[in-house]
Amino acid sequence: MPTVYITAPPDAAGEIASQLVEERLAACVNRVRCRSTYRWEGEVHDEDGEILLAKTADEACDELIARVAELHPYDVPCVERFDVAATTDPFAEWLGSAVDSGAD
Amino acid sequence: MPTVYITAPPDAAGEIASQLVEERLAACVNRVRCRSTYRWEGEVHDEDGEILLAKTADEACDELIARVAELHPYDVPCVERFDVAATTDPFAEWLGSAVDSGAD
Amino acid sequence: MPTVYITAPPDAAGEIASQLVEERLAACVNRVRCRSTYRWEGEVHDEDGEILLAKTADEACDELIARVAELHPYDVPCVERFDVAATTDPFAEWLGSAVDSGAD
Repeated sequence: MPTVYITAPPDAAGEIASQLVEERLAACVNRVRCRSTYRWEGEVHDEDGEILLAKTADEACDELIARVAELHPYDVPCVERFDVAATTDPFAEWLGSAVDSGAD
Repeated sequence: MPTVYITAPPDAAGEIASQLVEERLAACVNRVRCRSTYRWEGEVHDEDGEILLAKTADEACDELIARVAELHPYDVPCVERFDVAATTDPFAEWLGSAVDSGAD
Repeated sequence: MPTVYITAPPDAAGEIASQLVEERLAACVNRVRCRSTYRWEGEVHDEDGEILLAKTADEACDELIARVAELHPYDVPCVERFDVAATTDPFAEWLGSAVDSGAD
């Protein structure tokens, strides 16, 4: 069961989160404000952003990552998959029901 | 060595964090404010919450997850275990000493 | 591809983030405000802090962890490596170019 870690500018983060849940690519997205320090074209930059933690199912994860690339305002967004080692049965069941796994 | 990712409403998060550390189920809990977007009973919801990142030992992790289910105000809380791939020796030692591993 | 999770006091976190990126040990560091509850010398403490999420390459990760130990004001800082299960090709390429992998 993956959690996808995405960073986005504050004015785009809410819309990305809503779309992923509306389209059943994520069951839940937690958004957190952050300050990002990074190197871009040789220079070190520092700016406000948000981290999105999108909870999804194995079957939906590749499509979620592709969809983020479409929705995101940046050419090279930070999008990383982390795998959950264990969860509770009720949470796994809820997550499966909230994500469209392609059945239908 | 696991980190357990939990989400909780703001008025319950501090008490859950304190209890887990007081009961030696976690050595440390970091709490972060978040905005959560999720699907529940077919509808998309959006609300404020907190993410709790509980640092624990392998031996204590199952008991920590069971205790969160008892302490948490929701029927189906988000509780996910992520495994640490590496840490420093001093941090691992401190963590082991702060968590009750059932000895005693 | 690792993400290193570090906690630091608010007055030290920005400098640690800048140094890691300036020295090409991390491509990017996301900083988030947190409240930490932890056990130290038998007592439970509660204080403000920041979580730093440092994005780096496999080859640079051990050096990053050693550098954090030098830069950090605490004797036993929380420093944990989490491994990314998947990312996008453009992000992986950018990350590699922003981190000095010892070539040169």
